[in-house]
Amino acid sequence: MAYTLGIDYGTNSVRAVVVRCLDGAEIGEGVLHYPSGKEGILLDPHDANLARQHPGDYLEGLESSVRQAIERAKKADPLFSAKSVVGIGVDTTGSSPLPVDEANAPLALNPKFRDNLNAQCWLWKDHTSHEEAARITALSKEHRPQFVARTGDTYSSEWWWSKIWHCLNVDPEVFDAAHSWVELSDFIPSVLSGITDPLKIQRSVCAAGHKALYAPEWDGLPDKEFLAMLNPKLADLRHRLYEKALNSDATAGHLCDDWAHRLGLPTGIPIAMGLMDVHYGAIACGVKPGTLVKVIGTSTCDCAVMPADQEIKEIPGICGIVNGSIIPGCYGVEAGQSAVGDIFKWWVEGVCQGSPSLHVKLTQEATKQHPGQHGLLALDWNNGNRTVLVDQRLTGLLLGQTLHTTQADIYRALIEATAFGARKIIERMEAYGVRIDCVVCAGGIAEKNPLLMQIYADVLGREMQITASSQACALGAAIGASVVAGVHTDYASAQAVMAHIRPQSYQPIEANRAIYNEIYALYEKVHDAFGGVSVVNLGNVMKELLRIKDGKPTMKTCDSKPESVDAAPVSNYILNFE
Amino acid sequence: MAYTLGIDYGTNSVRAVVVRCLDGAEIGEGVLHYPSGKEGILLDPHDANLARQHPGDYLEGLESSVRQAIERAKKADPLFSAKSVVGIGVDTTGSSPLPVDEANAPLALNPKFRDNLNAQCWLWKDHTSHEEAARITALSKEHRPQFVARTGDTYSSEWWWSKIWHCLNVDPEVFDAAHSWVELSDFIPSVLSGITDPLKIQRSVCAAGHKALYAPEWDGLPDKEFLAMLNPKLADLRHRLYEKALNSDATAGHLCDDWAHRLGLPTGIPIAMGLMDVHYGAIACGVKPGTLVKVIGTSTCDCAVMPADQEIKEIPGICGIVNGSIIPGCYGVEAGQSAVGDIFKWWVEGVCQGSPSLHVKLTQEATKQHPGQHGLLALDWNNGNRTVLVDQRLTGLLLGQTLHTTQADIYRALIEATAFGARKIIERMEAYGVRIDCVVCAGGIAEKNPLLMQIYADVLGREMQITASSQACALGAAIGASVVAGVHTDYASAQAVMAHIRPQSYQPIEANRAIYNEIYALYEKVHDAFGGVSVVNLGNVMKELLRIKDGKPTMKTCDSKPESVDAAPVSNYILNFE
Repeated sequence: MAYTLGIDYGTNSVRAVVVRCLDGAEIGEGVLHYPSGKEGILLDPHDANLARQHPGDYLEGLESSVRQAIERAKKADPLFSAKSVVGIGVDTTGSSPLPVDEANAPLALNPKFRDNLNAQCWLWKDHTSHEEAARITALSKEHRPQFVARTGDTYSSEWWWSKIWHCLNVDPEVFDAAHSWVELSDFIPSVLSGITDPLKIQRSVCAAGHKALYAPEWDGLPDKEFLAMLNPKLADLRHRLYEKALNSDATAGHLCDDWAHRLGLPTGIPIAMGLMDVHYGAIACGVKPGTLVKVIGTSTCDCAVMPADQEIKEIPGICGIVNGSIIPGCYGVEAGQSAVGDIFKWWVEGVCQGSPSLHVKLTQEATKQHPGQHGLLALDWNNGNRTVLVDQRLTGLLLGQTLHTTQADIYRALIEATAFGARKIIERMEAYGVRIDCVVCAGGIAEKNPLLMQIYADVLGREMQITASSQACALGAAIGASVVAGVHTDYASAQAVMAHIRPQSYQPIEANRAIYNEIYALYEKVHDAFGGVSVVNLGNVMKELLRIKDGKPTMKTCDSKPESVDAAPVSNYILNFE
Repeated sequence: MAYTLGIDYGTNSVRAVVVRCLDGAEIGEGVLHYPSGKEGILLDPHDANLARQHPGDYLEGLESSVRQAIERAKKADPLFSAKSVVGIGVDTTGSSPLPVDEANAPLALNPKFRDNLNAQCWLWKDHTSHEEAARITALSKEHRPQFVARTGDTYSSEWWWSKIWHCLNVDPEVFDAAHSWVELSDFIPSVLSGITDPLKIQRSVCAAGHKALYAPEWDGLPDKEFLAMLNPKLADLRHRLYEKALNSDATAGHLCDDWAHRLGLPTGIPIAMGLMDVHYGAIACGVKPGTLVKVIGTSTCDCAVMPADQEIKEIPGICGIVNGSIIPGCYGVEAGQSAVGDIFKWWVEGVCQGSPSLHVKLTQEATKQHPGQHGLLALDWNNGNRTVLVDQRLTGLLLGQTLHTTQADIYRALIEATAFGARKIIERMEAYGVRIDCVVCAGGIAEKNPLLMQIYADVLGREMQITASSQACALGAAIGASVVAGVHTDYASAQAVMAHIRPQSYQPIEANRAIYNEIYALYEKVHDAFGGVSVVNLGNVMKELLRIKDGKPTMKTCDSKPESVDAAPVSNYILNFE
């Protein structure tokens, strides 16, 4: 009987799960909440954009969570022993790069840099490098349009090059001391494999392609000439990174003696490539051509795959399309909504000042309504729009209020707004040839909110399925491990036995669907007008309000089209003129 | 020493005030809250649009409030005695018509009709006749465009002909039993004057012109031919109404023996013409050419006057322009916002579920903000838009929300929205030649909310003054009485000594004004887009949501211009294309 370990590095904790390769049963689990900072995140009281993590937490959590998972697995399954673990898979947040020295040791573990925030791991949600991101976007559009065409026409401040360049700009001492930089998803497998030279790390195309502008078509990472436009030192760094990134089914390494001892596992078992969390989550949800996976949480991440022999490699407004990043032989397509659960939380706990139990009450009230009853329409842009407008400076909108509008009315309208945003993403993918036959969801909201799931089914007009696992990312990593261990021959056969869907799904109700089709047409009108996509650009109203809020002088008449480098050009969208 | 009585018939109570003609001092006050119905209003549990009042309450309140005011005046001013009362003025809500018999007795006082809601007074806010109103609007546009041109292109369900026609449609027995119909503002003076034939009542041009389509240019009320298009019985009724309505400085009658006895006042003192409440309120606020009076309450009523020799007699979107309705020799110009205080109440008590004390807390928090800080923009349309769009089917809008937006942010944005709406009205009036040099406010909100007043000063870019009287309507009626009694020769000289402004006013702060000018430009863009005034008609989004809410089938593609009879045609507005 073979078992694999999936290890999921989240934003606040690391979780290890022991999975039976025969049927995907999760038989033991261990968790460590990162001890450093606030809920595991190192913050700067003077800069709300800063979010770092201490690499020591990762290593401590690795040992602690795995040992705990193994102990629990032993109790749960008498057939299990540590010797029956045949492989390890790892997923992490991303892009979360960290600087390492010549021996692949994080700079942060060097006493000289121990207290320097710039020497830590730069967590995915660190936004300190927004100026660098805007500059990379602008330079790419001018000199290498193919780069950002693959990332929805915008390079993000959450990504690899923005962060490393920002480090160079604000702390050249750390930059100069770093022999190389490693994505967290590549770093953990390299540690388990005992790799002591960062140039020998097997890097995954997942982070490389989605976050670092890597593509085989232009020989890997961005060329030296382009990087030198940013800073000559970045061009030099290119030599100390990697030439080739590997597909998701490659082997990252094999468990070294040291870590085999520390974890109590057999030396030499294979380590799967590290992927970003939602990508392994998508694998656990059974992603394949025709299946869209939605991980619904505070924000939403949407993953789909399309056969690599398809023509289209760029979809306007879709932030990442990378060959082999999820399933070998397929392009991994990633999109998302900047706020979903966060919007509901803002409404209930922020505005209504309610306790979390108010969610339950409002859900009950909203469930009694039929579609359209409240007369409201909202845009789900309270945290900007990631897909398909790719504009973080957009803001929320609610219309249709009367003197009788209630908390529950608005709560339901906000759920519907996120459903309309989800539909917009699906329609954009389909318009560019990504087949979507069914939708499988993961994440706490999908598991616990039948109202939301039914609304999504009605708005999307599709069956909504839910993964049977509540630890989909870790399960996906364990599936990856089962493939590199040779228990299963490929992802498809591993998914067939290890990835399960709940028997209950949500079916669209035809009458609701008809009403939501009408309301969606209205949503599109408002979406396009405020998104700057239709002939009239009301979106500038939102930008101007932010400019006024920031106390900045007028840069243009408020009737002109947006000029911000954050905004994708109108010509790249499917125009929806009336 | 001469005194007059001002009697103010509000929505829930009647209030009498004894005023000293020498200086406008209010020396005694009496109130009666109407005993019938819910807070004085007769309701129909099956029809939320219905709002009636029992005429018996008016008569009971007349005696009770006046006697109380006189007793208090005696105590407050040793020079006062009932014999020194030289005249009476009355203001009421409107249009509030009531059916009377041949002896000018309300049908409701006849035992046969005592329990019939249709025989009562039809309170201003009764909206049962919205279908009749839409039909009158449509017929007038087709056959008598001059009629609705004077009322902002829409005839309201709150007005005279809609209500009487609705009575004929739903209860012909009451209609047939009514010898005539009388506006409450004409009825009370007729009762005090002992008039026992409704055809001998002196009717005021105030209600006649603003609510009953009366104008000397077309020989008074609408012609028989037009009324016959509605119903031949309405054409017959025209004979039993009035030929000529009188200006605001005419005399309605003289106090009859019976009522002199009941009130303890001298027989034969003159009764001023009854006006609608805000019109007498405007007089107490010193209205004259160049002064705009804003009565700010749950909704807002704006009154201005312009010399009658001016050319313009129609202003698109302004709901009433009537010669002599406020000040003789001037056109009275009336506009308003459908919800002001009601919007704040909706937000604080309806959505935030706070007690009234939350108004205080949110006001304190909002006061700390500078203009533009919250990044929000709202439309003040939660109860439709009375001026300048004249469209009750429009709804509210809020944009600019982030995940950090608070209750107080939205509270302030809603105050600002009402200020922007107020500016829109002023700019429309000015564009058509109504001079506005200063603004004088009345009403509880103006008196008690310095934050709102400062925002209004900053948004309107004008000094905001406040009347010194907290009973401006009753004071205005007393001023009217002082004129017909001959104590003062005309309104101007009466206002000069009896109408006072508080010494403290609100001055625009230049820095705030500059920011609000920028935000107002954004408000106009959104206002025009959703109001259906600019090239793109997003206002239809709101109408379509209401149609869906009502479960009605599609009548048109959602891209076409609105066809509803409620909506004023685009061509009548000052177009604001970009």
